[in-house]
Amino acid sequence: MAAATALPLAAAATAAPAPQPDIRTLGSSGKEEAAMDIVIPLYDAYEPLDVVGPYEVLAYLPGASVRFVGAEKGPVKDALGSLPTYVPATYSEVEHCDVLLIPGGGSVEAMVADADFLAWVRRIHRRTRFTTSVCTGSLVLGAAGLLKGLTATTHWGGAEALASYGAVYTPQRTVRQGKVITSAGVSSGIDMALTLAALLTDEVTAQAIQLWVEYDPQPPFDSGSLAKASDAVQKRVFELGKESPHNR
Amino acid sequence: MAAATALPLAAAATAAPAPQPDIRTLGSSGKEEAAMDIVIPLYDAYEPLDVVGPYEVLAYLPGASVRFVGAEKGPVKDALGSLPTYVPATYSEVEHCDVLLIPGGGSVEAMVADADFLAWVRRIHRRTRFTTSVCTGSLVLGAAGLLKGLTATTHWGGAEALASYGAVYTPQRTVRQGKVITSAGVSSGIDMALTLAALLTDEVTAQAIQLWVEYDPQPPFDSGSLAKASDAVQKRVFELGKESPHNR
Repeated sequence: MAAATALPLAAAATAAPAPQPDIRTLGSSGKEEAAMDIVIPLYDAYEPLDVVGPYEVLAYLPGASVRFVGAEKGPVKDALGSLPTYVPATYSEVEHCDVLLIPGGGSVEAMVADADFLAWVRRIHRRTRFTTSVCTGSLVLGAAGLLKGLTATTHWGGAEALASYGAVYTPQRTVRQGKVITSAGVSSGIDMALTLAALLTDEVTAQAIQLWVEYDPQPPFDSGSLAKASDAVQKRVFELGKESPHNR
Repeated sequence: MAAATALPLAAAATAAPAPQPDIRTLGSSGKEEAAMDIVIPLYDAYEPLDVVGPYEVLAYLPGASVRFVGAEKGPVKDALGSLPTYVPATYSEVEHCDVLLIPGGGSVEAMVADADFLAWVRRIHRRTRFTTSVCTGSLVLGAAGLLKGLTATTHWGGAEALASYGAVYTPQRTVRQGKVITSAGVSSGIDMALTLAALLTDEVTAQAIQLWVEYDPQPPFDSGSLAKASDAVQKRVFELGKESPHNR
């Protein structure tokens, strides 16, 4: 088929689909350590694009391995409720990683009150190359005490909470302070991950990943931030909240 | 906590995490039908952002329900290999939907040769409000015979294959031809989904979702298309392919 030869990164995927595997053995084990070891905690009601945006970019880094971890192995439900996911490893199995990426979502409230999880975040952070967050994942870094006195960003709805942890909130898309990189709401993780990809490798490699995922954004509207959205749009987002998947 | 009240769409998610559920009962059943019923087939080696970009946008539409379906219920492995997912329903359970969205990925080769799946795509297409694709998912629509004589788009690596199905390939981000909407590679599904959201509801609602997912893209580089990427970047993307997750 022409498609097989035309798609450079999918060349090996031309065989018939594999037999259905056992979901419990899919994904990386918690004990592997790759040349570039990226760890992303998942918890119930994680916001899927917070996770998958950066995952789609970072997994293509040469030598990279992405590990998803949870308090326990097992199923988690995403914030939108339709895409069942299975966490293959526990965070307690992780002693070290190069990149820690904390996503946001509906249960960040619980995570910022989970002393064991926050202690793990602090311990892992000591030896990371980069400690990063997307969306309200920044509140977890704040609750862990890692943002005190730092400029940082989060989802626009989390600005006040972020400041309560001693961070200086700024409505920027990606904010780097040394090895700590925070990003704004949901989709911003893609931009953050490209910045991170260049820091971990080089700009040509990061740009090649951008080309592969064809990230040449052309949104049909320009309402992606509070500064740009009209009053009607800002009113509508609160109305939508009443019947959002978070609340079903 | 301040965060809870500050995040309008996450207000209901302030409770402690639920006990671990059985993954086989998570997600929508194949038999439900919502006010706006969106169906997304998943297959082994699906490209995760092809799926999750549009899912993150469309799930917030009022009354929307997103159903993930596969040839069989059970686990599927994504193209990047680390995020085990469980398909909760089979496509044969779906008789009708408002929106059909076909993602791409490493096993599109198998899907374009799967006569049963293509017959199902054709049958469902007859009564959809919109039939859509992301990335090499467009090749599935092509193989099903739905793009003959139509202008359409796909991942830049799939252009030749798309033309082999009688479509006129154009390197645009989103292409609408009546009720058929195709989009370019991987990340383009976000832009497509916002266009679709406005068609299904209204522009203010689509813009409110854009604000909620804070889609104000600011990529650190401008290499997201073949027209913009340098020769060095185009060379690097082929090198990356040799050790990409698709080929591990």
